[in-house]
Amino acid sequence: MVVAYDGTDYAGWQVQPNGVTVQQKLEQGLADVTQEAPKVHGSGRTDQGVHARRQVAHFDLRDAWTPVDLRKALNAVLPADIRVANVATAERTFHARRDAVHKEYRYFIWNHDLMPPWKRRYAAHVTNRLDVDAMRRAARLLVGRHDFAAFTANPNRPVETTVREILELTVRKRGSGIVVRVIGTGFLYKMVRSVAGFLIRVGEGAVPPDETPRILASRTRTARVPTAPPQGLFLWNVTY
Amino acid sequence: MVVAYDGTDYAGWQVQPNGVTVQQKLEQGLADVTQEAPKVHGSGRTDQGVHARRQVAHFDLRDAWTPVDLRKALNAVLPADIRVANVATAERTFHARRDAVHKEYRYFIWNHDLMPPWKRRYAAHVTNRLDVDAMRRAARLLVGRHDFAAFTANPNRPVETTVREILELTVRKRGSGIVVRVIGTGFLYKMVRSVAGFLIRVGEGAVPPDETPRILASRTRTARVPTAPPQGLFLWNVTY
Repeated sequence: MVVAYDGTDYAGWQVQPNGVTVQQKLEQGLADVTQEAPKVHGSGRTDQGVHARRQVAHFDLRDAWTPVDLRKALNAVLPADIRVANVATAERTFHARRDAVHKEYRYFIWNHDLMPPWKRRYAAHVTNRLDVDAMRRAARLLVGRHDFAAFTANPNRPVETTVREILELTVRKRGSGIVVRVIGTGFLYKMVRSVAGFLIRVGEGAVPPDETPRILASRTRTARVPTAPPQGLFLWNVTY
Repeated sequence: MVVAYDGTDYAGWQVQPNGVTVQQKLEQGLADVTQEAPKVHGSGRTDQGVHARRQVAHFDLRDAWTPVDLRKALNAVLPADIRVANVATAERTFHARRDAVHKEYRYFIWNHDLMPPWKRRYAAHVTNRLDVDAMRRAARLLVGRHDFAAFTANPNRPVETTVREILELTVRKRGSGIVVRVIGTGFLYKMVRSVAGFLIRVGEGAVPPDETPRILASRTRTARVPTAPPQGLFLWNVTY
């Protein structure tokens, strides 16, 4: 299934002891509708306050359901901030996380003195005027296969490798809105928000764009790479 | 001052016994900042759940304030869903309601099977496919000076006359988004949401557009003129 959600009022995607999560709501919804208790496997986690335009998740049911009926039934029981955009029958071996080939995230920045109240849940507010050309120069230096240890926050999460590949990283500006778009094969914990936080620092003039290779090479997290706030981030698409 | 607000969590503009209102928040904010207790006079009321892009309000202070400083101080104490976009010194005789010449409202409709969670607070969800040409034909018949008694809900509010003038009424479509834009010299209670509700019924094919003159002439509120839900409505601009 393809799921859209407003993450503002959730403690992220993954079921956890404290706070309501999107995964939990979907599992409850599926249980209500099907009288089965399938576990929902997402393409990946999203953090507290992060949104998704097209999160993909799979689950197994014993009973046969018409996808369209299941989608309607789910949307009837789910809260309005979680919507099932599509349901489809998959191969028995399909796995939403393992079979994902690319993921696209978009990070929205509102670069103006005043934050319109109706954008505040869906964009980061940056009042310092951002130099978009400098952001683009730094972005180009992050594209490719690199060790992104300096761009992750991993509390108690040892990973085998911190090497990842960014396929595309662009910065678009329209009026006061700036969108950072990133496509990769996979991302480290808080990597996209770290990339966004770094590009904002570059745009503010706090870090010269040509420092980017040195920061990557340092493999060390510093104040030059802050984690941008969650409300600007959307999991935009997952490709299989 | 020019004020933008997300009306979702407010019981409308005007101070009232039950529920927190935008006017009340602004009066509290002004009292906190200035140590005076000015009454805030808006260009007009907005109902519970209705938003404003540029509401205009005036107030009187004894002390002299630089407008820019007052604006900053207010935004520092106001919640994020109310923002002061501008403060300016007005003529002593200026009155936000009495001096308003035109008002523009926009009503946002999302015309698609699925309501994206991040639009749900700021648009009405209509799943039946709307015939925008039919809506435009009906809209053209509402422009001008008419008795809009059939387009108001006035519980216990006797008004001198129900004649009003609509200067512009247009329907724009972009993708699944439809925007009804209306400019007038003044509006009756719930008139804009009644016009939007009527145009939606026309778009759904429930009322033929050429019935419009008869509905106006009836001066009677019927099911053909429902009140569209508040979250789609924005007070867009006030002209002086």
